[in-house]
Amino acid sequence: MERKRIAIIGIGLIGGSLALQLNEKGFASKIIGVEASEEHAKKALELGLVDEVLPLDEAIAGADVIFLAIPVDKMVGLLPSILDKVEKQIVIDMGSTKDLLLKAVADHPRRKRYVATHPMWGTEYSGPAAAVKGAFENKAVIFCNESDSDADALAWTRDMYKGIGMHLLSMEAESHDLHAAYVSHISHITSFALANTVLEKEKEDDAIFEMASAGFESTVRLAKSNPAMWVPILMQNKENVLDVLNEHISQLRKFKSCLEKENWDYLSELISGANKIKKIIR
Amino acid sequence: MERKRIAIIGIGLIGGSLALQLNEKGFASKIIGVEASEEHAKKALELGLVDEVLPLDEAIAGADVIFLAIPVDKMVGLLPSILDKVEKQIVIDMGSTKDLLLKAVADHPRRKRYVATHPMWGTEYSGPAAAVKGAFENKAVIFCNESDSDADALAWTRDMYKGIGMHLLSMEAESHDLHAAYVSHISHITSFALANTVLEKEKEDDAIFEMASAGFESTVRLAKSNPAMWVPILMQNKENVLDVLNEHISQLRKFKSCLEKENWDYLSELISGANKIKKIIR
Repeated sequence: MERKRIAIIGIGLIGGSLALQLNEKGFASKIIGVEASEEHAKKALELGLVDEVLPLDEAIAGADVIFLAIPVDKMVGLLPSILDKVEKQIVIDMGSTKDLLLKAVADHPRRKRYVATHPMWGTEYSGPAAAVKGAFENKAVIFCNESDSDADALAWTRDMYKGIGMHLLSMEAESHDLHAAYVSHISHITSFALANTVLEKEKEDDAIFEMASAGFESTVRLAKSNPAMWVPILMQNKENVLDVLNEHISQLRKFKSCLEKENWDYLSELISGANKIKKIIR
Repeated sequence: MERKRIAIIGIGLIGGSLALQLNEKGFASKIIGVEASEEHAKKALELGLVDEVLPLDEAIAGADVIFLAIPVDKMVGLLPSILDKVEKQIVIDMGSTKDLLLKAVADHPRRKRYVATHPMWGTEYSGPAAAVKGAFENKAVIFCNESDSDADALAWTRDMYKGIGMHLLSMEAESHDLHAAYVSHISHITSFALANTVLEKEKEDDAIFEMASAGFESTVRLAKSNPAMWVPILMQNKENVLDVLNEHISQLRKFKSCLEKENWDYLSELISGANKIKKIIR
């Protein structure tokens, strides 16, 4: 692939990790960062994630490709005004929700320069210092509403994601948001709620933390995730998340009912049913 | 430490991993396995976890130390009859619940030969093939009701667990079961319920599994855990688990209410609160 001048708006966990991959794979002749936080901008330069940090308009003017890796509420505000300013550039977002965002630019005259993607990778940490080398590798990236993008923009974006080791999926934005509620958003809510359950108890007793095991860590690690990123995701995907959350609470109630009624056979059935998750994760 | 002849009743995930550690640290002159499943017995010999597999009575007679690493319902049935047969041997259980078990042997004439422990380590897999080298290292082990054990039995057991890299905690059985409900048992229930939530959906659509991300895997991996182990744990710890489960459901309802009422400030507060789990897990 021909090297491009790439601007990344938001050099945090996602933008920073992307920068590392683009540099490693030789896809960028230059990486320009745009970053609202001065501290993060400084850190991104210090870590060599970006070659320079520029104001938004200069970054847009000086780039061939523009990535957005900012919280999804900021994305909805910013994407239309970025499209106002582009001509031949490719604009790509990396956000966790899609329906509202795509509706916000549906009628934009430059809509076709924009490619909607959601790389399914992240950690519970945030900021440029959280950027991870080799992130995204062997993970899925979802392309949404592909037919609304120009062929050249789509082709470059597909090649780039393949180049950093991702496998590509394609679906409509509505479908994406529903699935994301199931495989990502609900996991965060259960983890936040589990952390709060245990922290509530801690007021009374410290011993439980000395006992915290690997199983506990695994279920609760997402609870460290940043509210600035997660509140907007849950806001934008409210309806789907509520549906899944209701279903999840009703599944938990089945366990509750088994315990209350001492229905151990049904409890065993519920657990055996859950074991079928083995066919999805190994 | 002087090498001992060690019998391990139940050569599965826990018993098998213990065998590996005892061999590596040179604590055993011989390891005798006792195993109800012929297939597991064969596998344990094949993997070199044990030197021989013997019937229970022969194993007891030929051992200095006897470990129990079987599901907790089997434990309650078996421990009293093992104590019937011991003289100077040390008997140690490695189960996940303690209150019922300790009550079952409270008045046994050989009670003092028995040491109640719960090493806080496990994985979602089971059987001897799931045994892990270096398991238990840097994890906590809880000793329960220590004053009910003979000093020599306690001393050896403490040295052994320290020797395999664990840090020791001590508490009463009732306290242990309450804490275990918070840091281990509830994590399994949320994970089982999350798996069932998603599997319910899968009937309609396969795409969500191609999207399954690392965050999802992390929260759902415990759902692969074995019902033969987990039903008895939840049975024996029913009251505590129900308390924690009710609390957890009420924490989830707070998230639900935020979404329904679009109370984003409170949602942000709930997430920031959950972030405090950082002080416990890094």
